[in-house]
Amino acid sequence: MRWYIIFGGVLAAAGVLTIGLLLGHFAIPKPPAPEPSWLKDLSRDIDESLLQEVMEEINNQAIGEHLKQLTMKPHMATTKGDEDLVNLILGLWQNKETGLDEAKAEWYHAFLSFPNASQPNNVTVVSPSGSIAFTSQLTEKGDTADQRDPDVVQPYAAYSPPGNPKGQLVYANQGKTSDYQDLLNKGINLTGTIAIVRYGGAGRSAKAINGAPFGVIGVIVYTDPKDINDGKATEQETYPNSWYLPPSGVERGSYNGYFGDLLTPYYPAKEHTYRINESEIQGIPPIPTQPVGYEDARTLICQLKGPKADETWQGSLGCDYSVGPGFRDPGAFPPGSDVQVNVYNYRDIRKSANVMGMIRGSVEPDRYVMYGNHRDSWVHGAIDPSSGTAVMLEITRVLGKRLKEGKWRPRRSIVFGSWGAEEFGLIGSTEYTEEYFSKLRERAVAYINVDISVFANATFRAQGTPPVQSVIFKASQQVKIPNSNSVSVYDNWKNFFNRTSPTYGPIPSLGSLGAGSDYAPFIHYLGISSMDLAYTYDRSKTTARIYPAYHTAYDTFDYASRFIDPGFTSHQAVARTAGNILLRLSDSLILPLNVSDYGETLDTFYKAAFAEYNTGLTTCSITLTPLGDAIDRFKTAAASINQQIVSLQQDDQRSPLKVRMINDQLMLLERSFLNPLAFPDKFYYSHVLWASKNSGVNTFPGLADAYAKASISPCTSAEWKEVHKHLTIAIQAVESAASTLEAVI
Amino acid sequence: MRWYIIFGGVLAAAGVLTIGLLLGHFAIPKPPAPEPSWLKDLSRDIDESLLQEVMEEINNQAIGEHLKQLTMKPHMATTKGDEDLVNLILGLWQNKETGLDEAKAEWYHAFLSFPNASQPNNVTVVSPSGSIAFTSQLTEKGDTADQRDPDVVQPYAAYSPPGNPKGQLVYANQGKTSDYQDLLNKGINLTGTIAIVRYGGAGRSAKAINGAPFGVIGVIVYTDPKDINDGKATEQETYPNSWYLPPSGVERGSYNGYFGDLLTPYYPAKEHTYRINESEIQGIPPIPTQPVGYEDARTLICQLKGPKADETWQGSLGCDYSVGPGFRDPGAFPPGSDVQVNVYNYRDIRKSANVMGMIRGSVEPDRYVMYGNHRDSWVHGAIDPSSGTAVMLEITRVLGKRLKEGKWRPRRSIVFGSWGAEEFGLIGSTEYTEEYFSKLRERAVAYINVDISVFANATFRAQGTPPVQSVIFKASQQVKIPNSNSVSVYDNWKNFFNRTSPTYGPIPSLGSLGAGSDYAPFIHYLGISSMDLAYTYDRSKTTARIYPAYHTAYDTFDYASRFIDPGFTSHQAVARTAGNILLRLSDSLILPLNVSDYGETLDTFYKAAFAEYNTGLTTCSITLTPLGDAIDRFKTAAASINQQIVSLQQDDQRSPLKVRMINDQLMLLERSFLNPLAFPDKFYYSHVLWASKNSGVNTFPGLADAYAKASISPCTSAEWKEVHKHLTIAIQAVESAASTLEAVI
Repeated sequence: MRWYIIFGGVLAAAGVLTIGLLLGHFAIPKPPAPEPSWLKDLSRDIDESLLQEVMEEINNQAIGEHLKQLTMKPHMATTKGDEDLVNLILGLWQNKETGLDEAKAEWYHAFLSFPNASQPNNVTVVSPSGSIAFTSQLTEKGDTADQRDPDVVQPYAAYSPPGNPKGQLVYANQGKTSDYQDLLNKGINLTGTIAIVRYGGAGRSAKAINGAPFGVIGVIVYTDPKDINDGKATEQETYPNSWYLPPSGVERGSYNGYFGDLLTPYYPAKEHTYRINESEIQGIPPIPTQPVGYEDARTLICQLKGPKADETWQGSLGCDYSVGPGFRDPGAFPPGSDVQVNVYNYRDIRKSANVMGMIRGSVEPDRYVMYGNHRDSWVHGAIDPSSGTAVMLEITRVLGKRLKEGKWRPRRSIVFGSWGAEEFGLIGSTEYTEEYFSKLRERAVAYINVDISVFANATFRAQGTPPVQSVIFKASQQVKIPNSNSVSVYDNWKNFFNRTSPTYGPIPSLGSLGAGSDYAPFIHYLGISSMDLAYTYDRSKTTARIYPAYHTAYDTFDYASRFIDPGFTSHQAVARTAGNILLRLSDSLILPLNVSDYGETLDTFYKAAFAEYNTGLTTCSITLTPLGDAIDRFKTAAASINQQIVSLQQDDQRSPLKVRMINDQLMLLERSFLNPLAFPDKFYYSHVLWASKNSGVNTFPGLADAYAKASISPCTSAEWKEVHKHLTIAIQAVESAASTLEAVI
Repeated sequence: MRWYIIFGGVLAAAGVLTIGLLLGHFAIPKPPAPEPSWLKDLSRDIDESLLQEVMEEINNQAIGEHLKQLTMKPHMATTKGDEDLVNLILGLWQNKETGLDEAKAEWYHAFLSFPNASQPNNVTVVSPSGSIAFTSQLTEKGDTADQRDPDVVQPYAAYSPPGNPKGQLVYANQGKTSDYQDLLNKGINLTGTIAIVRYGGAGRSAKAINGAPFGVIGVIVYTDPKDINDGKATEQETYPNSWYLPPSGVERGSYNGYFGDLLTPYYPAKEHTYRINESEIQGIPPIPTQPVGYEDARTLICQLKGPKADETWQGSLGCDYSVGPGFRDPGAFPPGSDVQVNVYNYRDIRKSANVMGMIRGSVEPDRYVMYGNHRDSWVHGAIDPSSGTAVMLEITRVLGKRLKEGKWRPRRSIVFGSWGAEEFGLIGSTEYTEEYFSKLRERAVAYINVDISVFANATFRAQGTPPVQSVIFKASQQVKIPNSNSVSVYDNWKNFFNRTSPTYGPIPSLGSLGAGSDYAPFIHYLGISSMDLAYTYDRSKTTARIYPAYHTAYDTFDYASRFIDPGFTSHQAVARTAGNILLRLSDSLILPLNVSDYGETLDTFYKAAFAEYNTGLTTCSITLTPLGDAIDRFKTAAASINQQIVSLQQDDQRSPLKVRMINDQLMLLERSFLNPLAFPDKFYYSHVLWASKNSGVNTFPGLADAYAKASISPCTSAEWKEVHKHLTIAIQAVESAASTLEAVI
């Protein structure tokens, strides 16, 4: 070949190669470099299929097994039975295959009260000559081996002082102040009397606290079959033949009006912690108090003389209730017999544990979704609290397994708490919130409480603050009720308890949180959005104040599995709903806290305040207008943040910090309602919207109580100053909430 | 050409092209797809060159111009002069070219106290026949037009009650309780007397509060030339001939021991806010009180009879000070003359504004770096506070210009506050913290206060909490002192005030924050890391209690520019240092808060407590060991988080959320020392480490004061309970701080 052909060929080839290289490099697009995976993780949202799998795996039989293990022995706080459960739960949560990242026991030195095993409490009838005509039963009747367990604690009123007061018996209905006043109005001198009262209407300790100023020197408390047994009162009609309380059953309980360790208010009860004097304790009975069964109560009440009690005071003991004082003559007892209350309780500081289990969050480990229940019971506690603990253990089993298999890690951290000594006054959970106050205040997203998970198997019910309503609704829509493939927990709930929301129309009715379980320090003291979940009664079928075996030796696995939830399918429905809520809170990119639902509450509170107080306020030149303005500002801010959330969810390039900023606003909204100076006299109540109140008006509690006191005073009185102050407190809280939700700058 | 040659050529060309395409596409690496710019922004650190430029631009002459504008007229809170400055600052901050993103005035209804212009306060000497032998000067001598401005407020003691008490004069030194007690010990009956006292030693209002229980019925306060003028007391030696106070100069001031609006503690003073009764106000004089110049004081004190005052009580009025009661006979006044204090002050609720200026953060708009100073003065206030305001306006001018040019936007938001009514008791800043309590508690990174920016031109000085020490050091190392190219503000500071740190060796000494300016509500009430910056005295050259024209009609532009800081170069050094700190706090990726520096403070506190109290505590079976353990835990946690920060800074793929998490821990550390229940009697003091205390021991204030009270009581006393309680409070605060810094889960 000629050189120029070769040359030309090489040149052409080089040219073609160059064109190829250029085209290949520049013209053919490469796929874009993938987003770094760590960045993708930052904006991953909840995995709905994981949610479905977890719910599938939550198993009723496994819950039954947990419950059996938990209820083998009585496990009153700090007893051997309780310590055994500490180790059981630690073992499960530290399990290599189904455990959590970390689990530990945290101990507090709690001030508790116990009966004296060698000198049992009782109630006697003593004749004028000093002979004992009657002694109350020292234990409940042993229908099964459970009741005969030597570790069953005798019935007693925890924190009642010891003593042996003796006097004429009176029947004082529920031990409310108005009840004692009624007796006084009937001309009955209560000085030196022993009052027998039924559970209900007033708190346990209030019955004695109310009676003492009237001169009452001892109190006997019992459960009337009318209040708990739908009137059933014979052995044949009651457990073990039905769910009703047997005649010898006695409700134990803490006679303590506050919560937290009584000697260390606001400080964790460590060994070295400063303790107040026992004499400074408030809210416990000033006089000896002892609970008895209704069989013993019948023996006493049905022998009373004196005027017949009012119709509303009558119960189902099978006789006409008279009010006393003293017994009928002739009657079962020697004429002039007194009743003596013999209490030998002692107080002791004991070590009580919280068992804490942790799953570390992958993206936001410094955000905590909290889930808890207490562990201690009065006796075997199959319902209270083990039904809740069994649910918690099932959730941790299913999540722990996924975690250990490397299939899942939540976006945020999850903290489980098995609280100690709740029965004595929410001690474990309160001490926990005191110890970790700052940290929880900054980092806790929400608290889920499942104490008694199944009171009865008719319907789900929930209590909580408005921001958690939507996530409870969402979860309960994804769970079916037991033995149904079509009816959701949500729909069934709506059938039983509902209201018409101005925003949503008919919806299930979310209850308000009181202070009845471990959510109390979380919501009232720390301002963490909280909820309490359970399955409960069909109120058309029973009027029982609570499930009849509550706090008695009959609250056993046998009772739970035969009468409360055979097959544990209601337990399962609660576990699925609670687990669903837990995962939504921990895994959702944007926190599922709907802050605009607080707007409805504030509107309701405002309307009630306006209707009830506006005339009176206007007379004293106080106006509600700034409160209304603040609520309007809040609603505007809430609507605007919801709009921002929608935009953010549509934005592909959403910055992880924008998400965090919005989430912080949602999380911290509840905190903005806190004011530690709002109620200086009420231990731990700092939440301006949900503090306990005496007034029945459904509005700002501080305003309601202040108004109730002021209404008959002149405008210049200190009482009216207090009304104005609480109005300012309410306005400031709502303004502060609005400010938290508004554009950050 | 033959077909096969053509075919072969085409084939070869195609092959070469293919090879080219393949090589071009796959073998020649393209540069990696750039990280999305929004992601890069998230982890951008501070730009040191910007910092240098900003510092360069901060200009002494411009500061002088700001100062001139600010001091044209007296601008006492809520007067026309004050309102004019509100508009001036609003105008600057809203300027299209050099302004901020947003500026607004926020108004409060503040409870203030004023003298009655038509009935001027005075002090008279009244003879037994009722004739007036002497009347104190009603105004200060007018050396320049500034002093003759009709808007110069007469000297008065704000919040002193009106009244005309008359009695024998006594000299009571500084009006401390111990001073009155000393007089009593000398056999002097103080009942019905008028006390003349010098400034210093006790707070303004304390002088009257301390005296009243001894029977004192009126108080006269003056500034002794010994305390403020290095002894100089003639017209020739004083302004306008020097910086010293002329004989007729009178220090005005708020006679108010607390801070915040007195009628609305804990609530923002809006129109509708609940107000306590005036009779419930604490911390103000219970008896009429009036300040006078030392010329008038000389006339009174040098005529006193009675025993000669102790050497430490003597001043520089040019006579021997006797203590009274009453005047010498013979003397300048008719025998038996009394002194009468005539106060006609009235109280009024007036609208006072904070001017707020905002720069929105680019990455973390929900984190606020705060910078503030008050705006109101007593008269022209060239030093107090306008020297600080001039510095603030220079910083906002330079930053605003960059912002409006689109050259810069800080990572975090910056909030500037020009506070109102500080002189009456930090009212504007306190009401602001009350109104935005929740928001600031969650979002404020730090607060920088520059009130009086230049007391004197010798050296920089700073007060603050330990976490801000390092950033102040860093900034002050980057700024040169006036008229030097080599000496840094840091080195000069270290020459004047230094200490030997166990960690760092010799370093400048950072002072503690009291409650003397607007940082008080930020640190004590909200627990926001705070600092106060200024240039100050060479203590070898003057012993003046404060700059001599303080709170007088002589604190003018002329005074400032001739005697305090000619050329405004010390102002400039403060502005550069403060601006540098501000930018480091707003722009640094990791917050420049060195939390481990709290370890040194805690160690110091612990050692002092151990040395002073351990023997006594041990006697009462209280141990400091848990406190020591808590401090060790804190130090370990602080060291560990510092280690994490180092790792994070070396990590290329640092997640924006990891940065945020660490920053949140750093920011919130200070908050963890808050306990709103720790000092229920002390308004606003919630910070367990820095609350005001009476004890001189440099340790935990609650423990120190409780111990001082308990030391002579039996171990079973309530006083010892209080000691134990405050030890628990200290332990809980330190544990809580450790917990905040430890691994989040």
